[in-house]
Parts: sequence; C-alpha cells; structure tokens
Amino acid sequence: MKKYGFGIDVGGTTVKCGLFTVDGEVVEKWEIETRTEDNGSKILPDIAETIKAKMAQRQLDPEEIAGVGIGIPGPVNAAGEVPCAVNLHWGFVPIEKDLSAMTGLKVKAGNDANVAALGEQWKGGGAGYHNMIMVTLGTGVGGGIIVNDQVIGGAHGAGGEIGHAHVDDTMTEQCNCGAYGCLEQIASATGIARLAKKALAATDAPSVMRSAEKVTAKTVFNAVKEQDVVAIQVAERFGSCLGKALASFVAVADPDIIVIGGGVSKAGPILLDYIIPTFKAYAFSGCKETKFALATLGNDAGIYGAAKLVL
Amino acid sequence: MKKYGFGIDVGGTTVKCGLFTVDGEVVEKWEIETRTEDNGSKILPDIAETIKAKMAQRQLDPEEIAGVGIGIPGPVNAAGEVPCAVNLHWGFVPIEKDLSAMTGLKVKAGNDANVAALGEQWKGGGAGYHNMIMVTLGTGVGGGIIVNDQVIGGAHGAGGEIGHAHVDDTMTEQCNCGAYGCLEQIASATGIARLAKKALAATDAPSVMRSAEKVTAKTVFNAVKEQDVVAIQVAERFGSCLGKALASFVAVADPDIIVIGGGVSKAGPILLDYIIPTFKAYAFSGCKETKFALATLGNDAGIYGAAKLVL
Repeated sequence: MKKYGFGIDVGGTTVKCGLFTVDGEVVEKWEIETRTEDNGSKILPDIAETIKAKMAQRQLDPEEIAGVGIGIPGPVNAAGEVPCAVNLHWGFVPIEKDLSAMTGLKVKAGNDANVAALGEQWKGGGAGYHNMIMVTLGTGVGGGIIVNDQVIGGAHGAGGEIGHAHVDDTMTEQCNCGAYGCLEQIASATGIARLAKKALAATDAPSVMRSAEKVTAKTVFNAVKEQDVVAIQVAERFGSCLGKALASFVAVADPDIIVIGGGVSKAGPILLDYIIPTFKAYAFSGCKETKFALATLGNDAGIYGAAKLVL
Repeated sequence: MKKYGFGIDVGGTTVKCGLFTVDGEVVEKWEIETRTEDNGSKILPDIAETIKAKMAQRQLDPEEIAGVGIGIPGPVNAAGEVPCAVNLHWGFVPIEKDLSAMTGLKVKAGNDANVAALGEQWKGGGAGYHNMIMVTLGTGVGGGIIVNDQVIGGAHGAGGEIGHAHVDDTMTEQCNCGAYGCLEQIASATGIARLAKKALAATDAPSVMRSAEKVTAKTVFNAVKEQDVVAIQVAERFGSCLGKALASFVAVADPDIIVIGGGVSKAGPILLDYIIPTFKAYAFSGCKETKFALATLGNDAGIYGAAKLVL
C-alpha cells in the first residue's frame, strides 16, 4: 500500500525536498544544493541520491512510495520532458523518464509556478476549492490556473504565464519578455519599486519612502500602512492594474477563488484592499463575488504541489 | 451497443436538432419552434417529443442511443441545472434530470457558447487540437475555452465569457453588462458598426460606407476589401483590440489554436490579417506561434458540440 510521496522543488540555487504522507502531512523537509555545472547534469543524480538516502534512513520500502513529484523552473511538456530550463543550465531533459530510471519510482514533473499553485490549492490559501487562479507576485509575476483540480499546463507549456498578459498601453519600457505593458511590469516586486521611484521623482510631496535606503515593494506597503500619500498612490496604481487584469482572467477561467502569493503578498490583507474594488468594478457580473485569499504555504508551496502530482 | 446521439441547440426562437452517429456524422438535422410562453414550460416537453418521434420514425432502440446533449443560452451548473435563462423565460430548471425523465435517455447540458466551441473543436475549425480558445463575434462576443478536450464551464458558469474581459480604459459608453470597456463593445458586430459610425462622423474623408443604407460589420469588411481608408481604420482598431485581448487570454489558457466564429467571421481570412499582427506583438514568447482558424460549422456548431457532450 502506498503511504508516502516525495515532493521536490528545483530552484536555481537549492533543491527543496519533502517527504509527505498520502494525506498531505509533511514527514520531513530538507534541502540540497542545485549544482548547475556541466550543463546541470548532476542535478537529477543528486536528487535521486537524496531520495534513496532518505528511504534507506527511514527504512522505506519502494512499495510504500506513490512516487516523486518534481517542480522545474521551466516548461514541462505533456510527455514529461523539459525542452529547456535556463536557470538549471539544461537543454532537453526527459526528466520523468531519467529520474524514474535513477530511483525506480514513478515520477511526475511540472512547471514550478504551476506546481506551487497546485500546492496552495491542495493545502494552502485555496484549500477546499476546485477552481483557482494563483498569482505569484515576486521578482516577476507568475501564476497557475487550476480547473477541476488540474493545472492548465498549456499547449506550449505557458499555461498561467499571466505575468505577460498585456495590461497597459502607455508603457514605454520594455518587459524582459520583449513586449510592452505586461502585468509583470507593474505588479511584480520590481514593478512596484519602479512605480514608487517614478512617483517620488514626480512630486515634492513628503513621503516616508524618501528616507529608505532602497525603495522596495515592502517599503511601499509599509508606507501605505502609515498613510503615506505617495505610497498610497503607487498602491492604487498597482491594485487597479492587477484588479483589471484579474477581472479579464476570470472571464476566461471563472475560478472559485483567486490566491495571491509571492514575496509581495507578505504585505498582508491590505494588498487585497487595493485589488478587490477594481476587480469588482470590471469583473463579469456572475464573477464579481469570486473569493480572494492570500497564499499560506510560502516557500513550501512547491514541495506540497509537487507531492500532489503523485498523491 | 451505442450507435447514435442527439445534439440539441436551444435558441430563443428555434431549437436546432441533430441526430449523429457516434463518429460524429450527421444523420439528420431539423428544427422546431422554441415556445417561450408559460415561463418556457413547453420547451423541454417539445424537445422530448421530437426526440421520441424521431426514434419512432427511424425505429431506433433506446439501447442504441448514447444520450442527448443540449446547449442552453444561459449558465449550466456542475449539477446539470440551469439557474436562469432569460431568453427562454426560465427560472431554475434541473434540465438534465427533467429531460432525462421525459425521454428515458441520458442527458448532458452545457452553455450554448461553450457547446458551440466544443463542436468547432470536434468537427470544425479546431479539429485535431486538444486546447482551443473559441471567440464568437456576433451581436455580442462569446467564447469557449477548451483544455484537454474539456470545456471550462467555470465556478459560476461563466468560463469563456471573454466578451466581458476589460480591454479599453477610454470607453465612456456602458456595456450591457454594466461595466465599461468590455471586449464586446469593440469586437462584436454591434461594436464594429458603432466604431464605423463614429469614424465616419469624425472625418470628411470619402468612404464607400457613406452610401450604405445601414452600416454593419459586413459593410465595414466589404469596404476594407475595397481599400476604403475609413473602414481600414475601423478594422485596425478592431484587430488591435481583439489581438491584444487574445494575447492576454493565451497567457491564461495557452491553447494550440484560436478559432474565430460568429457572424463577423463571415468576412473571411481578411479578419485574421487585422488580428494576428497585434496578437504576435503582445503574446508571451512561447505562444506567439499559436495557430488561428475561422470557424467552419456556422450555425451547426451548437448541435455538433451538444452531441459531443454524450458521444
């Protein structure tokens, strides 16, 4: 009988690992280094080794293990292959086949943002709902769209790449993706910091942000909590833009709940106060009451979601 | 053994009916009137009667019938119930249960736009693809999102309601849905006609559209084919707006193909010439090569998709 599953979240510097019961309880979490040298050829053997060591240490029989779920910072196609993953220095890697051969276990792989969304839907902010849009506001903006408990991977592995939805016709700066006016340019931590710097430069109004050594998204939302006028203006621009974008996304996917995660979400519920009014103003009538929640699993969302791929 | 299925497409004035083989060949098509009097209470009995009459006429055994698929102009929830369908004068109708009781056959119901999308994906413009966004440009703008051969119905029955995605911050007129700047206000037949009237009023430039008795979307695209400068300007606005919106939608659903249907699509491939350049400019890098096609089933998409619900 299957009792356990592994959830692995591969990042550019560390690989997060989790051993889970089939009910989704964490038995143990640990990390290993991501060794990207030699075109990242050591990454999968390192992961196989740490899994086998953990099984030996805990005297787990392969028969008890449902499998290994793994999240990758790059696209994963329907055949369980990674065409390319820049941060791992990988070209084509048939990850499910290779890691399965190395461990003797069933392996299921997914894109890391999609896998994190699955984690939040399983055990985090979206728990109890079958249809969810996850928005991850970090250095960039990522996402994951869950329909009937399944992540939309997409025909080109780009399902949930909502950071690159077009939201602003006035943007003259170019996004990392090459386009202009992507959601990521406004709603990411980087985007919020840039908006703040521009707002400060455009006015002589006093602002607590002026004394910050470095203006970050955290600076902005801390200042908002102190009723800082310039920071509030930035938060309004952020919330209006994200609220409108989410209103468009629900016209496509119509989820039960929208979960906001990533570093920016640490600002707390105040974030939602800036997003929801615009969302309600622009959402299709049947979707105006879509629920909102903040992510709750933090950096563990990836290992939870990865484990869910096999549990 | 199951050999046949019925596909029923309920509209506000007529009910389109089709008898299909399990392979999706049409055996026969016919129509009956939609009798909306008495809160539409005659609609389902009329449908049950025409199905039973057809089975009697063709001497079909219930054992040979896979079931009845039915598309409804309104939302259909996961339990197979219609909360409300304005054009049919319906309040709450447990359609699957009721029609099944009347016919003795398995019944599956879906929203008409979603069902039409399923038809186009099965036997029309999207045939051969598993992931599709269908955009229906008619009096309004509807749609259907298909992921792994399944339509996204949505948590509130509003999956694919892309006509009400927000696309224009400058719009001062209100959409029928109550919001401002919905895709439907620009890309529907009604929207295109309004854009044309505005463009004609704003300039003294000569235009073949000025001699039209009534300016419609058809007038506009016929004029575009004659190189009419004002019409081209309208087509560019339409294409740019729809192209940007589709670029955002693919960041959510990442389909293999986008299929454009509805009355406006009768303008032909020239429509795509105005949509695709903007789409490519704004789509996420991995999705720029998403295919485009025109719908091919016309008014029959609904009966095909309805039949597919049970085949």
